[in-house]
Parts: sequence; structure tokens; C-alpha cells
Amino acid sequence: MNNWLVEQLQRMNLSDVLVQPQGFTREGYTAEETEAIEAFKAIAEELGLDVSVDAAGNAIARWNVTGGHAAVATGSHLDTVPNGGAFDGGAGVVCGLGAVKMLKEADFKPQRPIEIICFRSEESSRFGVSTIGSKAMSGILDPSIGTLEDQHGITLAQAVESQGFVWQELVNAKRSKDELQCFIELHIEQGMHIVNHEKDYGVVKGVACPVRLAVTFHGKAGHTGTTPMDQRQDALAAAAPFISFVQETALQMNDAYEKSLVATVSTLTASPNSMNVIPQTVTAGVDIRSVDDVLKNKMADAVRSEAKRIAETTGVQIDIEVLVDNPSVLLDDGIAQQLVDAGDHEAYLAHRMDSGAGHDVMNMAQTWPSGLLFIPCKDGLSHHPDEFASAEDLKMGVELLSRFLMEATGHDGKR
Amino acid sequence: MNNWLVEQLQRMNLSDVLVQPQGFTREGYTAEETEAIEAFKAIAEELGLDVSVDAAGNAIARWNVTGGHAAVATGSHLDTVPNGGAFDGGAGVVCGLGAVKMLKEADFKPQRPIEIICFRSEESSRFGVSTIGSKAMSGILDPSIGTLEDQHGITLAQAVESQGFVWQELVNAKRSKDELQCFIELHIEQGMHIVNHEKDYGVVKGVACPVRLAVTFHGKAGHTGTTPMDQRQDALAAAAPFISFVQETALQMNDAYEKSLVATVSTLTASPNSMNVIPQTVTAGVDIRSVDDVLKNKMADAVRSEAKRIAETTGVQIDIEVLVDNPSVLLDDGIAQQLVDAGDHEAYLAHRMDSGAGHDVMNMAQTWPSGLLFIPCKDGLSHHPDEFASAEDLKMGVELLSRFLMEATGHDGKR
Repeated sequence: MNNWLVEQLQRMNLSDVLVQPQGFTREGYTAEETEAIEAFKAIAEELGLDVSVDAAGNAIARWNVTGGHAAVATGSHLDTVPNGGAFDGGAGVVCGLGAVKMLKEADFKPQRPIEIICFRSEESSRFGVSTIGSKAMSGILDPSIGTLEDQHGITLAQAVESQGFVWQELVNAKRSKDELQCFIELHIEQGMHIVNHEKDYGVVKGVACPVRLAVTFHGKAGHTGTTPMDQRQDALAAAAPFISFVQETALQMNDAYEKSLVATVSTLTASPNSMNVIPQTVTAGVDIRSVDDVLKNKMADAVRSEAKRIAETTGVQIDIEVLVDNPSVLLDDGIAQQLVDAGDHEAYLAHRMDSGAGHDVMNMAQTWPSGLLFIPCKDGLSHHPDEFASAEDLKMGVELLSRFLMEATGHDGKR
Repeated sequence: MNNWLVEQLQRMNLSDVLVQPQGFTREGYTAEETEAIEAFKAIAEELGLDVSVDAAGNAIARWNVTGGHAAVATGSHLDTVPNGGAFDGGAGVVCGLGAVKMLKEADFKPQRPIEIICFRSEESSRFGVSTIGSKAMSGILDPSIGTLEDQHGITLAQAVESQGFVWQELVNAKRSKDELQCFIELHIEQGMHIVNHEKDYGVVKGVACPVRLAVTFHGKAGHTGTTPMDQRQDALAAAAPFISFVQETALQMNDAYEKSLVATVSTLTASPNSMNVIPQTVTAGVDIRSVDDVLKNKMADAVRSEAKRIAETTGVQIDIEVLVDNPSVLLDDGIAQQLVDAGDHEAYLAHRMDSGAGHDVMNMAQTWPSGLLFIPCKDGLSHHPDEFASAEDLKMGVELLSRFLMEATGHDGKR
């Protein structure tokens, strides 16, 4: 099983290695993502699954059984951030496939369909909006975001269409509540909590959804050599204390409150970005997360106040655009208990925890009882070329998933 | 004369307006710059001047006279920063042409040649290196800089070749000392000193040459949602206090010392610049200028110390590359006095001052006695779409230049 998992993950990463110096760059609705999904489809067909692709480009591999029962579904995504790793998303997809392989080899006969779903465009790195495929499937996609542009000026709608889909039809990927019994996602942890608590895997209670702000500083351009220091409205000099404020305030809040919070100025673009011109415009992207929505909004309010203070003291005008502001998602307690029970059965220790990162499951949980399972990754690193999860941990994921699927589909549908 | 100046400046700006919302983008060694220089050549030929182009692409319009005397030259440039103005460079070129027109209409007979030079690629915005054409003409061009790249990865050598010149031959643009008697540049002030001192024009004593540093912060990428605040090496959070330090220290130095100094973090690029990834690498471009080289180096040393302090306290590794470090240039006192005398003659009041910006004259001054004349520009704005100089001030420039040229060439060459 270990070799099989590594080989299939290599196939879906279009590479014969899983860690490489530049990492993997396979953004949402690109040809690279399509190619990875084609590999997923090929593997699923080799396992004897029925493969279909919905209006959003999500691929669904179905272990069909007689009778019209709702399916038990698992899955994740195959897109990556630029220079990301092979495991963020891929681990969940390959473990789902591995669980089906294991159940088939054990001659298990599910009493309801099992699905492995490969969602499209989970990462927000390209368009600033995450989990587009699972939003469409859950019926919560906002059609107005088709005009969002990537850094090359390509709109989301154009990207979707470049891969053979039609933006206006994406909403047709919505599935009815009675099609699925439940959804369970497996993902790498992207942190160190499991290891630090000396446990084997994580079972997630709540998913922190970000507040994301685009904060634009409107200064005044001028010649760097001839504009006296006391007559400037330098947009970058105004942004600097703002960046420091975000980091320092997030650190302080972690000391002051029981729940944890993270806040990052993760993007910054300066214009005209020319050596002899005072920065005229700077846009900083702020990403704030906590499972505690009150704490998250407290931080967002502090950010707004600091922007106001800087605008008043520097004369630099500051606009704040809210890109994302979703409440955190609590996952299903019953499913979580089944995931803990599956570990008990397989002799793995579960750590109950929250997720600082968003995942496709947070959308699926809006409609279907859902769960999220974490396997450890090396040094907690993710969104980084050194991202890595061991074959042993992938195999543990397969064992936990197959145990869960067996329990959830081994009955006559009355469960 | 006023209308003629505006019309010719429009021709060289390839536009029928001189102020437009997006300004003018005509970077060095681009087709746009070449087109502007073609307009210059056409106007010079209409004035009856002999036009030639040297190995660096500098255009030289010569009012030739019998005898082998050294020429008196004036000139400036036609390239702009991105979204710059029509006057930075263009004012000096059009006033030189206007002075020739005025002298010809007055039936003046120069006793030695007069040249109007249009230098190539004066701005540093494209390749981080300024005044390439005048460096070549002055014989101080470093051939190794041909490998410098613009933001699209085009090297300086490739850009030069795209406009029909050969990088290895640029050094052949060097002229011998005996070809020119002196050089005088007219430029917009790009500041408010003339107006603040209630004078009409500026005569420059010294030109501040920048120290330019590329400061790179090497942090560690990671997921913004899952990496705890106290376990980060965020390159942008490390750069923020550095940006603040540069501004605050420059402000303090202006209070503490008699000579003025400016320092700007004018460029910043963050990587991977993705909403859900902690910034891994940030490069900040620092531009430090003062006519007082001791003060300038004191600031550069303070910048280095602050980078060292930040590296030690954050764990983010910091590299500093020196892009430019040239001593300031003192201009010729005799020429300056002639420029003051020209104002006396024409009833304009001169303000003796330093230049915070570099200009082509700083290279020409390495070989030939040189002078720099400033005319005011609106609100001191430059490198900005609102950059503007009035037709009256351009005409004043023509009168001052033509008076200077008359005095410098109206004799038999013994002067």
C-alpha cells in the first residue's frame, strides 16, 4: 500500500518526486490542475470507479452500488499555491483512493455508494477566493466573483472557460441534500499540534474562516532626490507601521486570550515601484483567522482603527476593502466521534483540535454532516517546497478512512 | 516663442497634451524613447542643424560653423519614469532647441559650434542605473552592467540592441576632451527651493549622487492559517520596522545637521505574495541622497546597522547589495557665474542651490566644465503625472540659455 500511495500521488503531481526545490505550482483552473485531475480520473478508473465531472470541473469517482441510497463521500483538491507542496490536497485525494483500494481488496461490499471527490481551485492564491469547486457543489458560490482577476489580469470566469467550463453554469454543480449522507475530508495538518501533543492524527472540531482585507494606502509620488523628507506622503512609509501593528497586535492577543488567533500581512504591492520615485500607492493584503469569531472581529476592528490613526497622522488616504468575511464553521460532533472511534479500532491516538486553515469541508458542512481528519506533516510546513508527509502517515490515513467508510456504508442504509 | 516651445515639446512627447492622467511612460532604450528622439531630430533639422546619432543612441544636433573649435553643448534627455511627466528631460531639450531658434532669428553668428544633445536612458527606473547615454559619452560607462535586467527579465544589452545599437560598441560614444568647450544642462527643479526663496531660476553648485541599496529579507514561507504567531519568520514583518527606520532616521538627520539628506524605501517586492502564505522573501530598494557625502554615508551605515539588528532579533537573514555608490559632483564655478550673469542681463533672479537629483550633467562634468540651470515646476512635483512647467518659465530658460550660448560662442575661440 505504501508504494502504491506514493506512486499514485506522484502521478497526480505529474512528477516522479514529491519534494523538489521549487515545489509545485498548479493553480486553480489552469491546464496543470486539469492535467492532475486527469491523472486522478485514470487512477479511479483503474480501481473500477465510475468517474464524472460536474459543471464546476470537480471530478467525482463513485463506487456505485445498487439502490438509490445517499453516498458517503470523501475528498480534497489537487491545486496548489505557487511553489507549494505535493501533499496539501493531494494527501486527501490519494488516501480516499487508497481506502477504496483497501476495501475492494478486502472484498468489502458497501451498502451505499462511496465517492471520492476531487474539488477544483481550493487555494485562494490565484483569485483571492478559496474553495471554488466545493462552494459550487454546496450551492454557496457567488456568481459575481467571476470578474475577479489574477495577477495577469485573467478573470476567474475566463480561467474557468479556458479549462472547458462555462462560468454561468458553475452553479449547476450544486447537489441536493439527499445525494450525500455525509462528507469527510482528510488533509495534512499544516501545523505541529498533533506531534506536540504526542498523538497520531487530528480530528477537527471547528474550522477558522478568514477575514481578509485589502488595505490601500494612497500617497503622493515625487522625485526621491528632490522632495524634502518633511513634505512627503510616502505610501510605503505609511504602510510600514501598519504591517508592524498587525504582527504585534496578533502576538499580544495570543497572550491575552485563551483562543488562538493569527494575522498576517501576506501580500504587498507598491506602485510605481521605481527606484527614484516616492511610493504613490501600496496595497497590503491582511489575512486574519481564529475559530473564535469574536476574537477575529476584534482584530479586524483593531486593524481598521490603526489604519484610521495612520491616515490622520500622515495625510495618506487609506481605503479598506473586505475581500472575505465568513464565520467559522463547526463540524459535526457525531462524525468526529466516528473518526475518533476509527482510530481506537486501528490503534491510533486522536487529538481533538481546531483548524486554522480553511478547507473544502467547510463548504460541504453547510449542507451535509461533515468531518475533517488531519495527518501530520513534517515540521508543520505547508505552502512551502519542503512540505512533506510520510508514506506511513498516508497509510494511517487510508486505514482511518477505510475504517470510517466501512462503518458508514456497511449497513442497509437505515443508519 | 511660447507656442513654438509647447508645440515642439508636444511633438517630442508624441502627444497633443503635456499633462495627462496617466502621465508619460517612455523608458530608456524602448521604441517609445526612439520615437521621441526621432521627433527631436526632425525639429533640429527644421532649424537647419546637422543631426547625428552616436554609438549609444545619443542624438547630437550641431550648429556647425567653420573652424575646428570645440563646441559649446547643452542638452538633456527624453526618456521618462513610468507614469512620469513631459518636462523632466524634455524641458532641457526643447529650451536648447528654442535657444538656437532665438539666436538664428537674431541673426547671431557663433564663432564656435553649438550642440544640442539628447541623451539616452537618463532615468534609473528601468534597469536601476541612471544616465547611460551620458556615461557613454563621458567615457565612464561600465560595460559589465549590460547584464542588468528590467522587471520583465530583458537585459540592458538586449534593450540597447532592440533599438538598433550594439552593447559592446556603446563605449565608442566616448568623446575626447577637446571636442567640447563646456556643457550646460537645463532641467526642471523637481522641488520648491526657487519659489520658496522668491527667485526666478536656480543655478546649481553640487549634484547629490545616490547611494542605492537592495536589502533582501530571507524569511520562511508557511501557511498563514496554521503557523502560530510566535513560530514565524515573516520577511515582510521584518522589513516593516526597517522601512520605518529609514524614514525616521532621515527626518532626524535633517533636524540634526545643516546639510539636507533624503532617504527613501522606494521599491518593495514580496514573494510569494500570496494571500495564504507567510511572506518568504522581501527585497526593499533604498535610495539615499545628499550633496554631503559624509552625511550620506552616515545614513547608509545606520541602515546597515538597523538591518543587522533586525536580523539578530527576528532570525530573518538579511543581505545588502550596493547598487550605486557615487560621490557627489561639484559643478564649475566659472560656468555657474556665467549663468548668474545671464540672469542679470535678462532681469531674472538666480538662486544658488544644490541638486538632490542626479542629471546627465554629473557625468559630463567629469570631463568638461559644466553647469546646471533649473527652471521652476508646479508645486515642485516631478516623476508624477501632474508634473508641469509653464510656457513662461520655458521661455525664461530659452532666454537664459541663448544669452549663455551667445556669450560662450560670440568670440573667436580664445575665451
